Amino acid sequence: MPMHEYESMLSRPLNIKIPEFSHNQRIRHLIFSAQFDPHTLNKLFHTADKIRSLAKSKEGHIFLKSLLPHKKALLYFTQPSTRTFLSFDAACQTLGMGVQSVQDRSLSSESKGETPIDSVRMFSSYYDMVIMRSVTPNLAECCAYMMNELGSESRRNTPIINAGAGADEHPTQALLDIYTIERAMSFYHPKNSSHWNLYDELRQNHPNLTPGLNGKTIGFCGDVRRGRTVRSLLTLLAKYKDVKVYFITANHEILRLSNDLRARLQNLFVEVREFESFEQTMEDGKPVINHLDCLYMTRIQKEHNSASLDEDLSSIDFSRYKLNKQRVTMMRDYAAILHPFPRDDNFGEIPIEVDTDPRAHYFRQARNGMWARAALISHIFDVDGEIADFYERYTAESKDYNEGVL
Amino acid sequence: MPMHEYESMLSRPLNIKIPEFSHNQRIRHLIFSAQFDPHTLNKLFHTADKIRSLAKSKEGHIFLKSLLPHKKALLYFTQPSTRTFLSFDAACQTLGMGVQSVQDRSLSSESKGETPIDSVRMFSSYYDMVIMRSVTPNLAECCAYMMNELGSESRRNTPIINAGAGADEHPTQALLDIYTIERAMSFYHPKNSSHWNLYDELRQNHPNLTPGLNGKTIGFCGDVRRGRTVRSLLTLLAKYKDVKVYFITANHEILRLSNDLRARLQNLFVEVREFESFEQTMEDGKPVINHLDCLYMTRIQKEHNSASLDEDLSSIDFSRYKLNKQRVTMMRDYAAILHPFPRDDNFGEIPIEVDTDPRAHYFRQARNGMWARAALISHIFDVDGEIADFYERYTAESKDYNEGVL
Amino acid sequence: MPMHEYESMLSRPLNIKIPEFSHNQRIRHLIFSAQFDPHTLNKLFHTADKIRSLAKSKEGHIFLKSLLPHKKALLYFTQPSTRTFLSFDAACQTLGMGVQSVQDRSLSSESKGETPIDSVRMFSSYYDMVIMRSVTPNLAECCAYMMNELGSESRRNTPIINAGAGADEHPTQALLDIYTIERAMSFYHPKNSSHWNLYDELRQNHPNLTPGLNGKTIGFCGDVRRGRTVRSLLTLLAKYKDVKVYFITANHEILRLSNDLRARLQNLFVEVREFESFEQTMEDGKPVINHLDCLYMTRIQKEHNSASLDEDLSSIDFSRYKLNKQRVTMMRDYAAILHPFPRDDNFGEIPIEVDTDPRAHYFRQARNGMWARAALISHIFDVDGEIADFYERYTAESKDYNEGVL
Repeated sequence: MPMHEYESMLSRPLNIKIPEFSHNQRIRHLIFSAQFDPHTLNKLFHTADKIRSLAKSKEGHIFLKSLLPHKKALLYFTQPSTRTFLSFDAACQTLGMGVQSVQDRSLSSESKGETPIDSVRMFSSYYDMVIMRSVTPNLAECCAYMMNELGSESRRNTPIINAGAGADEHPTQALLDIYTIERAMSFYHPKNSSHWNLYDELRQNHPNLTPGLNGKTIGFCGDVRRGRTVRSLLTLLAKYKDVKVYFITANHEILRLSNDLRARLQNLFVEVREFESFEQTMEDGKPVINHLDCLYMTRIQKEHNSASLDEDLSSIDFSRYKLNKQRVTMMRDYAAILHPFPRDDNFGEIPIEVDTDPRAHYFRQARNGMWARAALISHIFDVDGEIADFYERYTAESKDYNEGVL
Repeated sequence: MPMHEYESMLSRPLNIKIPEFSHNQRIRHLIFSAQFDPHTLNKLFHTADKIRSLAKSKEGHIFLKSLLPHKKALLYFTQPSTRTFLSFDAACQTLGMGVQSVQDRSLSSESKGETPIDSVRMFSSYYDMVIMRSVTPNLAECCAYMMNELGSESRRNTPIINAGAGADEHPTQALLDIYTIERAMSFYHPKNSSHWNLYDELRQNHPNLTPGLNGKTIGFCGDVRRGRTVRSLLTLLAKYKDVKVYFITANHEILRLSNDLRARLQNLFVEVREFESFEQTMEDGKPVINHLDCLYMTRIQKEHNSASLDEDLSSIDFSRYKLNKQRVTMMRDYAAILHPFPRDDNFGEIPIEVDTDPRAHYFRQARNGMWARAALISHIFDVDGEIADFYERYTAESKDYNEGVL
Repeated sequence: MPMHEYESMLSRPLNIKIPEFSHNQRIRHLIFSAQFDPHTLNKLFHTADKIRSLAKSKEGHIFLKSLLPHKKALLYFTQPSTRTFLSFDAACQTLGMGVQSVQDRSLSSESKGETPIDSVRMFSSYYDMVIMRSVTPNLAECCAYMMNELGSESRRNTPIINAGAGADEHPTQALLDIYTIERAMSFYHPKNSSHWNLYDELRQNHPNLTPGLNGKTIGFCGDVRRGRTVRSLLTLLAKYKDVKVYFITANHEILRLSNDLRARLQNLFVEVREFESFEQTMEDGKPVINHLDCLYMTRIQKEHNSASLDEDLSSIDFSRYKLNKQRVTMMRDYAAILHPFPRDDNFGEIPIEVDTDPRAHYFRQARNGMWARAALISHIFDVDGEIADFYERYTAESKDYNEGVL
């Protein structure tokens, strides 16, 4: 695979690499979830909230579309992913960007001997951002190095976004996941008013509850080992204070937490515990599911299994790793259930009977992906300040208007 | 197929279902052609005429694009149909909507066990309208129920448009077909003036001729039974007064009118007659083709035939069900020939020698699809009033300008 | 193949055909590279330069997008070509056009017996320009005749652009190639000023050097015979004065210059010479590579080779037809290396070590494709005058602004 020019750079440690993907205190290329620190995350959360709010009115939406009409994005998805693809498309469109896509690998020039690096360099000469999802490991990272090299020669340094790659990272999924948890843990409710708010009410039953990610307990259930979304999200959670992470998985080496990851989390002062069922009791006699602020469900990835592995797994009682109405009732009233989707209707880790429970956040999680990605793109192109300014004027005007000043 | 939640609703009668797909006297989800009543059709025809007219000037076109820039449509076409796909795309673009598409079923998450209902719910969280064409029967209808359910929980009720499904209905094809007939039967001509108009001229030879669909005789030729466009169009024609419907088909059960449909049409007071050739004479001694106001040709669908059926059909003289110049000359001078397209060049139901005849309406029928679909979308999003207002001002100004007032 | 209506027109001579593809001194349909004369090329070069310059600022870009928002293009690419596809997409978007594409032949109605002429006529009723790349030879030409016929009946004459077809012409590739050579031979440099410019400096060593294409020596290396881009470009070069064309190829009938083309070039007063290596010396004792103003490299097209041909070619020393750093150093300091791309990493006609040499123009050549195609489209739709006007005002304002007048 002819990426030889950049391959020697891949093995360097993250703390050397990460600054190379930033420019003027902004992310230029998004390759790893480790590029997100709590300060940047906080800014992105606020921008995402504002975009979401502005997109509700035609006027706000037209403002958003006026931000990047001079920019075009290419969605280069040789590894298919309808959800991620559409979510990025909608995010780009919301900011007024033109969008085009290359989805079929066989259409590309690679069959004529072109290297993927040449292909992406060519794309970057037509488009202002390349959002890529590839089966080739580290391709996005190598392309970011190539772009930086061009930039150092005063040529176009087109931003590269890693939209998931093979068994690699999926940093924008981690971003939307943590944004969804943060929103759920802000206890904001559309009906909050000066007379009533959800947080005050929740504190009646949960006196130690604080808003935000610090101190929260997050459960992960299902395919903890192979799910790259889990790894990417854990990278971000570990940056918050006093986070506890509980894994609820079958005790099989293909599914449970790896020793590596456990050690890595513990080094970052994350409290890690492992359970084999939702009902397993804790020191206070209550089941673990009742201790969770957030439960991240995953699909058991069977499509990559060998026949022998399938047989090996056949002795596991998988019903333990599926939600149902009864189990959900055991959860705290404010807890949030997430799932990176698609969920597997045949396996049934989340049956549709759970969908109408207020704790089900997985559909809004999908929609959050659009807002979080739009926030990221506005950060990269340095228009998040314009969004904040417009939002302030716009809401002030609405307030004036509602109060009769205008 | 896991649409179990909504499957019990499918068997209810149409008159119960239809109101569920409307909101504030407007169509919200378009699932069946029976949702169109003559009043709504008339409004859609007028809107389509105005959109067509405004799109001719850059100024008018820019106005149209200002209507829905804050809306995005997803074309979810897992059953391919280039014509319908492009026509919807062009309609959406004309109104300023962003468009994205999912066309390859294999790209979707269904391979990971996701239900089509979950997929469409996810799409509906990124896009403001889902236009779908699927091989799964009734999927659009089930999705509309799902959306209504979300709407009842104060969540997004994203409009669903059925763009054709398996052997089901194809309501927007029926809409463009009847719009084309209505326009042809309005006897409007670009050269109409205060001194001359086409309708007055035609009445010299056809003293009983009236503009509009009432009282018209529509012929259907070819594959009457399997063509879903025929069924959908008949549903609409039956809503007009004194419509006569003549079928010109081979007397074979796979091609001719079904007993069911004949009975249904007769119950709706439609005069139904069947013929085996264009030349078959009527009571006045003239061939049936001379009695038609409109002739709807269809392609004989051979791609679904079994070998035994093909043999069975081999004794039929299909040359009877093909047009040619000579047959067209037997038609009335104002009659309109339609075809849902594609026409089959190998079979030759309409040879290209007919294309330049003024009675050939099939290419403008295709273009009408774009205007009719744009009209429908502007109706659903409640911007047809804005179109009417702008059109009035715009044409008044042009008139003033032409008369020297401006 | 049912294009019979127009097939008899194909064999007519070019000088009869070419005027049919123009309207009001503008290209209406672009089918052949021979449609470009030096006057039109010169206008297109200037428009492309202005578009490139305006696209650099958000304000300029927004002006460009205001030119054709009322137009929609269809990219009908049944023969895949990612590069050409994306380049046209980006060009259309830059001018504000809506873009849709049909890329999968199997999606089209041809499987139902529709002729390609019917398909394109249908497309032309939804879109305002059809940009097509097809495996069917001469399809674009036949479609242009069809459109002209419709135009003669006062119907829509939608412009057709040939984006490459089988072994046929590829006129927009020729356009971007010659635009790239012309720019390289204008000796313009971003650092040119009143005190220093590149041209004056170069003349110290090359006293006879003149700006522009006249009198230049262009080398072609590699697959001279089968490369349609070579033929299309030669058609344009032959229109300039005193152009010399040197071919550097293996002496094998499948690769070297054909007798036909040699005779045709000589009839047009082009000096043609053939060489078997870059190092072959000329009359002055210097290697041929040192005499070139421009070197056009090509990929050896192996994907169409038979096994017997592959064996036949195995005795050739192909290392002679590959560039490397050492060979590039033998070139003139101002010379330009082009390649239509993709380059073949396995064959290695241009190794990446050459990429950073200032003579490497092949990546900017790709980007030039976007500007040259945008210039062509603005010419066809007659908005190039608007571009020139805005550009003049805009640069005057910037100048005033910089000089403190504003």
